[in-house]
Amino acid sequence: MAAEIIHPNTQAQPTSGFAAGDDLVDAVFALHRGGKMEVRATVPVRDADDLSLAYTPGVARVCTAIAEQPELVDDYTWKSNVVAVVTDGTAVLGLGDIGPEASLPVMEGKAILFKQFGGVDAVPIALACTEVDEIVETVVRLAPSFGGVNLEDISAPRCFEIERRLQDALDIPVFHDDQHGTAIVTTAALRNAAKVTGRRIGDLRAVISGAGAAGIAIAKMLVAAGIGDVAVCDRRGVVHQGREDLTDVKAEIAAQTNKAGLKGSLAEALAGADVFIGVSGGTVPEEVVATMADGCFVFAMANPNPEIHPEVAHKYAAVVATGRSDFPNQINNVLAFPGIFAGALQVRARRITEGMKLAAAEALAAVVADELTPQKVIPSPFDERVAPAVAKAVAEAARAEGVARR
Amino acid sequence: MAAEIIHPNTQAQPTSGFAAGDDLVDAVFALHRGGKMEVRATVPVRDADDLSLAYTPGVARVCTAIAEQPELVDDYTWKSNVVAVVTDGTAVLGLGDIGPEASLPVMEGKAILFKQFGGVDAVPIALACTEVDEIVETVVRLAPSFGGVNLEDISAPRCFEIERRLQDALDIPVFHDDQHGTAIVTTAALRNAAKVTGRRIGDLRAVISGAGAAGIAIAKMLVAAGIGDVAVCDRRGVVHQGREDLTDVKAEIAAQTNKAGLKGSLAEALAGADVFIGVSGGTVPEEVVATMADGCFVFAMANPNPEIHPEVAHKYAAVVATGRSDFPNQINNVLAFPGIFAGALQVRARRITEGMKLAAAEALAAVVADELTPQKVIPSPFDERVAPAVAKAVAEAARAEGVARR
Repeated sequence: MAAEIIHPNTQAQPTSGFAAGDDLVDAVFALHRGGKMEVRATVPVRDADDLSLAYTPGVARVCTAIAEQPELVDDYTWKSNVVAVVTDGTAVLGLGDIGPEASLPVMEGKAILFKQFGGVDAVPIALACTEVDEIVETVVRLAPSFGGVNLEDISAPRCFEIERRLQDALDIPVFHDDQHGTAIVTTAALRNAAKVTGRRIGDLRAVISGAGAAGIAIAKMLVAAGIGDVAVCDRRGVVHQGREDLTDVKAEIAAQTNKAGLKGSLAEALAGADVFIGVSGGTVPEEVVATMADGCFVFAMANPNPEIHPEVAHKYAAVVATGRSDFPNQINNVLAFPGIFAGALQVRARRITEGMKLAAAEALAAVVADELTPQKVIPSPFDERVAPAVAKAVAEAARAEGVARR
Repeated sequence: MAAEIIHPNTQAQPTSGFAAGDDLVDAVFALHRGGKMEVRATVPVRDADDLSLAYTPGVARVCTAIAEQPELVDDYTWKSNVVAVVTDGTAVLGLGDIGPEASLPVMEGKAILFKQFGGVDAVPIALACTEVDEIVETVVRLAPSFGGVNLEDISAPRCFEIERRLQDALDIPVFHDDQHGTAIVTTAALRNAAKVTGRRIGDLRAVISGAGAAGIAIAKMLVAAGIGDVAVCDRRGVVHQGREDLTDVKAEIAAQTNKAGLKGSLAEALAGADVFIGVSGGTVPEEVVATMADGCFVFAMANPNPEIHPEVAHKYAAVVATGRSDFPNQINNVLAFPGIFAGALQVRARRITEGMKLAAAEALAAVVADELTPQKVIPSPFDERVAPAVAKAVAEAARAEGVARR
């Protein structure tokens, strides 16, 4: 769940619904002692008869069957239900490049969320390499063991190439959650924010602060979803076609966005804008938010400190969302990735297509379609309707697009 | 649990204590449907407060702590309790080179045995590469995520170099069970067989049929354990120093074994031998076993079809062991690998040394020291005393040798 932080927060403080302090920190470390996950047998292994079925000699029959008919691996092993959560530790939460070992608590957390919310098994794979070629090569070599790959906390712009090359190389879904999970939840929230204020997404001009993994992916998805206009800002302001300092990824985004032809700063872009989407950290001053259009939406998603405090944003915005659990409208990727993989794995999808992602966003928005308010444009992460609805929509989209193997 | 098969069996038949047949095969496939394992959270993830400890923002504190003090990864993640079960699918059971996907049922089985018998978490990692350099490189890149590496079903002679290079490169234990697990259990059984017949291991001349992973490792451990003499045979007969066709590994073994200077066939070597150890598949005719010394031991460990049927061997041998669960004295690696890793991980051993392996063999033999009979020279795999005794001995040996980090 990493937003690229332009102005890095200093050490993240626990700031959920109760007072931060030593007791809370102690509770965090106590909970983490020994790690947060384990494996378990799902078949009995009590005696020699059990072993003769689960292990030798019985298991040899299953191996032979798969050797003769390789697709049977999906029926007779956990492969088709297990996802590798792969990182190189270069963009972990708001902490940046802390390396693979230090990233493991987040990867374990991701794995248990996959299981708890999506019924999908997941294994943390934190790698001791950061070169694009090395990461791609390593994951390709691991791929026989897994049904899907969730890339996590790998810094931009390497993450774009890694995801693209892995998806081209592999016949299992490869998905960088920091890009697309965030984009899917944001798109769903925006659709519902428009709906609850009597507008459509095509009426809106949005500005995204942050041109990393999340910002780029959100911009692409909003374009695909039919947004009126969207501009992306990095440290130097609007990512526009006149700039000469753009990476390939940013140049591509510049060409696909910014119909208004904005060229200035974030603050200038926000004047009269309908939507602010913050995935950059840093702060946006109140007086800038005050220049946004009437009835605007402020999605200030930097975690743990939103770019503008929700209470301040509410003075100007019709709908406010953050990444925090202690305010309404939490943009939490757990609303997306478990159901997306559950649906993709269920139909043995070869990849997660743009259509599948948009279907996920639509399904997520639809969960609360009959209960929309400005304080509820997306479901709670704990709403049990979410993952099944997202999984169903993703599975159907996979079949419709011909990428399902089952 | 792969013995290198010189004369490969055709498709392995389930042959445990009940009649083989379609019902049994159906039971095997039914059990394997969906795989044999899952992951589970060991901490609650029911609500926002739970998530704020197990995931953001609380988890960031743990990441930061590990980034500042890397050894804390062993306390606050599952890394120090999780082993990668790594294969390339080139030597799976008696089936040979069936590739990574087809190997997964065995790797899952190994993983659940690690957990059931040793309390050690384990993850199947079947790789899509077979070059030594590629396997070594890949496992090194994965290593931040794991507390140990169990190499499995990787064909000789590549397995020797892979294990050696990985152990040199890594600060976590690397152990090829097909080599050392088999050697440890065999050594324990042989010590007790000697004891129960009033002899010592130093009185014995042994002949090993099979110069693959298991055969080489057994020979080395018997030498370290003080056997009188041991000779290893491959397809061409005794591996002796006069031969010009030996791999480096076999040349090394030739130099370390065969005090008797034998040069001929397996049959010639067995004349007057005290111990036959079969890890090669194929068959040894009754008339050859009949030429062995009085009171000999026959450990015919090819699975599922021993090199000589135990009932035939009993006409000549004082102690008979096989790899099968439906005869006494089952040489089953599950008597070794769970306790070995449990002990090594407990003290955060940097490696599994020769001393630790010998200590494991001693501890395993000692479990049944007061209940030895010719039909019971090693414990049952389901004897609950085994893994704790082995773990304790291995942990103590690690500390004694200065390879324990805790």
